[in-house]
Amino acid sequence: MSLPSHVTIVEVGPRDGLQNEKQAVDTAVKVELIHRLQAAGLKEIEATSFVSPKWVPQMADNAAVMAGITRQSGVRYSVLTPNLKGWEAAAVTRPDEIVVFGAASEAFSQKNINCSIAESIERFAPVVDAARAAGVKVRGAISCAVGCPYEGEIAPERVALVARLMAQIGVQHVGVADTIGVGTPLKVQRALEAALQHYPLHEVSGHFHDTYGMALANVHASLQLGIRTFDTSVSGLGGCPYAKGATGNVATEDVVYLLHGLGIDTGIDLDALIDAGQFIRGALGQPNGSRVARALLARRAA
Amino acid sequence: MSLPSHVTIVEVGPRDGLQNEKQAVDTAVKVELIHRLQAAGLKEIEATSFVSPKWVPQMADNAAVMAGITRQSGVRYSVLTPNLKGWEAAAVTRPDEIVVFGAASEAFSQKNINCSIAESIERFAPVVDAARAAGVKVRGAISCAVGCPYEGEIAPERVALVARLMAQIGVQHVGVADTIGVGTPLKVQRALEAALQHYPLHEVSGHFHDTYGMALANVHASLQLGIRTFDTSVSGLGGCPYAKGATGNVATEDVVYLLHGLGIDTGIDLDALIDAGQFIRGALGQPNGSRVARALLARRAA
Repeated sequence: MSLPSHVTIVEVGPRDGLQNEKQAVDTAVKVELIHRLQAAGLKEIEATSFVSPKWVPQMADNAAVMAGITRQSGVRYSVLTPNLKGWEAAAVTRPDEIVVFGAASEAFSQKNINCSIAESIERFAPVVDAARAAGVKVRGAISCAVGCPYEGEIAPERVALVARLMAQIGVQHVGVADTIGVGTPLKVQRALEAALQHYPLHEVSGHFHDTYGMALANVHASLQLGIRTFDTSVSGLGGCPYAKGATGNVATEDVVYLLHGLGIDTGIDLDALIDAGQFIRGALGQPNGSRVARALLARRAA
Repeated sequence: MSLPSHVTIVEVGPRDGLQNEKQAVDTAVKVELIHRLQAAGLKEIEATSFVSPKWVPQMADNAAVMAGITRQSGVRYSVLTPNLKGWEAAAVTRPDEIVVFGAASEAFSQKNINCSIAESIERFAPVVDAARAAGVKVRGAISCAVGCPYEGEIAPERVALVARLMAQIGVQHVGVADTIGVGTPLKVQRALEAALQHYPLHEVSGHFHDTYGMALANVHASLQLGIRTFDTSVSGLGGCPYAKGATGNVATEDVVYLLHGLGIDTGIDLDALIDAGQFIRGALGQPNGSRVARALLARRAA
């Protein structure tokens, strides 16, 4: 199969990225980051999360972030909504899309959200109904789709099960997430194929972590299946590569460089994207986690 | 095409890696590194370089390194020999293989070794003759095979030309090297295919730098062409002269993790390999450049 000619990047830095950074970030900085990302050509931005500030204090300013964004035509803003209360709080901020999630690992589901996989999906059903009734698209994230810190390797059948349950409650798109970054190309392809049993190609995306440096090989392997949507995080926000136990979202810059090198259009201006990454890393006082950004910044400086 | 069932790793850390680290390393440490690498299952080790100590002081102890190694049956030790004088010095140390090199970029050849590509290959001809007469295998490295810091992108035809010239003088194997790490999978495949016009599959290897984080995607793409030999550097030893703060050689640990994840045999014990990398990084007082090593060490410590 030939590679897709266009790929859509879902920029998750402002939400998934900043949620996993220990340091608090000012609302104004988050809004500025989103503005810089959309100026760089990102068309899908995961902006914030409507979760309890008790659990995720980094996202306590969710409504303020949504209100602060100067929306750009053609850009879709998504938010995470773990329950009906979250959806209700999110709804008034007019997101274009919401994200619900389930694990492909029973042990992870129990330890992370204290219920079984099946129960977690059932709990999302009213959220999905409410969102769709409001004309808001629903995306599902399948975490631990390749490996789990408690169970080890995850069988593709588990991914197929979660995808089926999500399809049954009306989730319109699923992301196959290698949450701990242990996946390699063939295992990732098997996980994606499991999701493809219940969703069409354009409604399955890849979400890879670069903890083991495998993310770009996995993106390449996904493209070979025809997958054309990837979650990525500007400058690799959500885990510093130098920090112990880093979660390691793959950097948007690195994926964009790979895609452009393959002749695949993204609509993204890599230089402007690198500047957006430098902006947020500067605000955090951290080195840039993108190898492409580091290499190109060194070249600029030379 | 199905992936190869076995891949041979050529460990270049002791030569290509340490040559590009600014810090001097004691001979005893180099020898200990080589011993640890062979104990971890590496069967091909680039041990040192017989170049002028005026140009490469890091390799001035080449004969002492070769004399210090307790050779293990089944392991092949290679050395870099840029000219006849280098070959003569190398020959008495009984290497199993020598490495000669040429650039696929005229500008790089001129700036790096002060002669044209064709002239550089001609100069190697007597070295190749002498080595082969002594029963020593000759490997050629084609640098800047995808991109050049002076010329930008390199056409596959340039790689084919160097491969043809190397074949003509009797070089038995060629490595396609993305010296500055700018390559992406399709470009790397085109460069490899160019070399394959003049060499069989098992005599073409991939040598990738991870400066832009593309190396593992490029290894994966190479495997899909049937390539089964890769140069790698334990813990990512070897800085990149063109991109400060960025990594150079792809880390052996990362490639081994990828290969094992794909079900490909390497004969290498990843844990022992990680220990070898920690040993040399400890000696250098540097953080480990392998993502896999960092992730697995963090897991060990947890």
